[in-house]
Amino acid sequence: MFRPIRLQHVSIKHRPLVSTFCTSNRRPLLFGPGPANPYPRTLLAMSRDTLGHLHPSFIPVMNSVKKELQRVFQTSNKVTFPLSATGSGAMEASLVNLLEPGESVAIVCHGYWGDRITNMALRQNLKPIRIEGPWGKVIPVDKIAKIIKQQKPHALFVVHGESSTGICQPLHELKDICGDTLLIADTVVTLGGMPVFTDKWRLDVVYSGSQKCLSCTPGLSLISFSERAMDKIRKRKTAISSFYFDVLELHKYWGDDKIYHHTAAINNIYALDETLKHINTVGLPTMWCQHKDVAEYFYQQLNLLKLQPLVPNVKDRLLPLTTVRIPDGINGKAVQRDLVNNHGIEIAGGLGQLAGKVWRIGFMGSNATRENVDIFMEAFGDVLNKHGFNNNYINDRMCI
Amino acid sequence: MFRPIRLQHVSIKHRPLVSTFCTSNRRPLLFGPGPANPYPRTLLAMSRDTLGHLHPSFIPVMNSVKKELQRVFQTSNKVTFPLSATGSGAMEASLVNLLEPGESVAIVCHGYWGDRITNMALRQNLKPIRIEGPWGKVIPVDKIAKIIKQQKPHALFVVHGESSTGICQPLHELKDICGDTLLIADTVVTLGGMPVFTDKWRLDVVYSGSQKCLSCTPGLSLISFSERAMDKIRKRKTAISSFYFDVLELHKYWGDDKIYHHTAAINNIYALDETLKHINTVGLPTMWCQHKDVAEYFYQQLNLLKLQPLVPNVKDRLLPLTTVRIPDGINGKAVQRDLVNNHGIEIAGGLGQLAGKVWRIGFMGSNATRENVDIFMEAFGDVLNKHGFNNNYINDRMCI
Repeated sequence: MFRPIRLQHVSIKHRPLVSTFCTSNRRPLLFGPGPANPYPRTLLAMSRDTLGHLHPSFIPVMNSVKKELQRVFQTSNKVTFPLSATGSGAMEASLVNLLEPGESVAIVCHGYWGDRITNMALRQNLKPIRIEGPWGKVIPVDKIAKIIKQQKPHALFVVHGESSTGICQPLHELKDICGDTLLIADTVVTLGGMPVFTDKWRLDVVYSGSQKCLSCTPGLSLISFSERAMDKIRKRKTAISSFYFDVLELHKYWGDDKIYHHTAAINNIYALDETLKHINTVGLPTMWCQHKDVAEYFYQQLNLLKLQPLVPNVKDRLLPLTTVRIPDGINGKAVQRDLVNNHGIEIAGGLGQLAGKVWRIGFMGSNATRENVDIFMEAFGDVLNKHGFNNNYINDRMCI
Repeated sequence: MFRPIRLQHVSIKHRPLVSTFCTSNRRPLLFGPGPANPYPRTLLAMSRDTLGHLHPSFIPVMNSVKKELQRVFQTSNKVTFPLSATGSGAMEASLVNLLEPGESVAIVCHGYWGDRITNMALRQNLKPIRIEGPWGKVIPVDKIAKIIKQQKPHALFVVHGESSTGICQPLHELKDICGDTLLIADTVVTLGGMPVFTDKWRLDVVYSGSQKCLSCTPGLSLISFSERAMDKIRKRKTAISSFYFDVLELHKYWGDDKIYHHTAAINNIYALDETLKHINTVGLPTMWCQHKDVAEYFYQQLNLLKLQPLVPNVKDRLLPLTTVRIPDGINGKAVQRDLVNNHGIEIAGGLGQLAGKVWRIGFMGSNATRENVDIFMEAFGDVLNKHGFNNNYINDRMCI
């Protein structure tokens, strides 16, 4: 007797690794803290014929990327370009270029990234001054101002979106308290998803990753240096310890001179160009509203599922990425595994002291749609139920 | 009267930037020192759906890449993985990890890359000992042995393929002279195109780029550390100055622990996996023979064109890349421009003291075919003629 294969027994765990193109409706759904799913035009650009890093047909791509990046960063900084390294590379590049051994850097520390910056600063023989606060809370600007005033550090390092805790630490008020202290801002999780105004907020070094709210493929980071930052760098007494991240050398390639420094990641830059063009066509304000709307919709749905975001105050939350408390008695990792293996949905667990306590769920860039929230919530409710967390999500939802 | 558009007037300068796929017969031809044209399957892999850096479907790709890399490097080194940075990043990573400030490194300097390594060593407060020789000549092993014996440096740094001069500096004899001195080998231009035996030649740190003889897309480099190297690194007294390039941290991600370090360049790693699988299926010996055959065929054709390679001794030449003397009275840059704008063929000029004196012409990886040499020579002979270099290349060729 012929027995049909029951489709629900075909676990996506055993499906072919990944589809070649992004048009499959079985594409993996990346709802963690990044990478997000790239735009189709971004993925297609990755496959274009490679060109040399000084090929005459590549120069217009470089110029376009620089111009579009200035727009996304909202800056006129001439020294604005992609780095051939991921966000952690840009984090290192910001410190290595701007500061010399022995110089001090105040670091806003209320999450995993503050700790990483401290680690990097120590490796470079800088003097980190940690401005500490509890994980999951915004550090008041007064507290930062006091330390800047007392200790006059050479730089202040702030992570705009602390993706380990789900906090958005405001940047707009810092220009009024910084004085001669240079301001370094990590906008890895925010750029494209929340307002970032490099010039208006007087950010001296600002960087981001390609694979979060921009929805480009991972592998590149984006960085911009103000004239004030470049002045300090040009007057350094010691050499920049990294050749690879040396902004003075890199600017000879990305600036007008077009002098070889290293072989740029050509195909990734095609993809970045397509991505930035898409974002600037849609428009930053639209992108920001979209992330805000989707975040708020997600909070509503979480509420229906009787789940709590870690950050109580809505206005402190990082819109593109939400930290959600794992309910008592639920194995967070097992839920993640179930989601990815049986629903093709990737989310992440907590980092550092929040490991095992929160999930990190993001609807970033191309993923920031209400439809994705619905797809996610249905799977999430289902999986949580299976793991013993009783909820009437579907019923409650029907009653709205 | 209708006048047909004459095709020869349609300069490829004005054609669309690049085709979306690699199947176009108008694809750019990259016959310089790299990037080379990637394999079609490599380019297609770049467009696959992005996955998270710890996604369960990505782990098998990581494991495959490591295994295939060990085969390409001919090593059992456990610490063998791609870096999310280009070849210059790997060069920096090799120094930053293996050596501590104040330690000495002997550097074989007879080209542009020796100078760059010296520059990086100085930035890291290492003590470079330059073993100098004329550009375009192999440095005799006796000379290296003498300095190692006298000065007992902590490491010896050798560039296998000096792409600025077209020299291949032998590596196989160095294990007999190194003793306790650790051996760092740059195989950026040779890996995949000429024999490299990491274990047999006792290379302690060896790295390469993705975009040369492997014909992968640019953006990644590949690195392998011997147990002897890892021993030294684990016993360091000072922290590794770079977090981004810290092999101990990177190994926690690429090794069995699978702990997050940075977001890997997922799509580039798909492409690398495809490329390495292709190379290991064809087989390294076949790849090596192919590069050798094509190089020898190219030398013959150059001879017909009455052009001279810079390196007189055939056995000293770097097979994947040839430095060709620019004849008197010819503007090398103008020839390059003409080739790229009107024939879609990219070659490069000289670096450093060889700028304006040589062209650098490479048939690497997927480009290493006699057909490509023919395509190139026809265009090259034509362009040279136009620029006043009389040759009877086509006629001479017909007589063979």
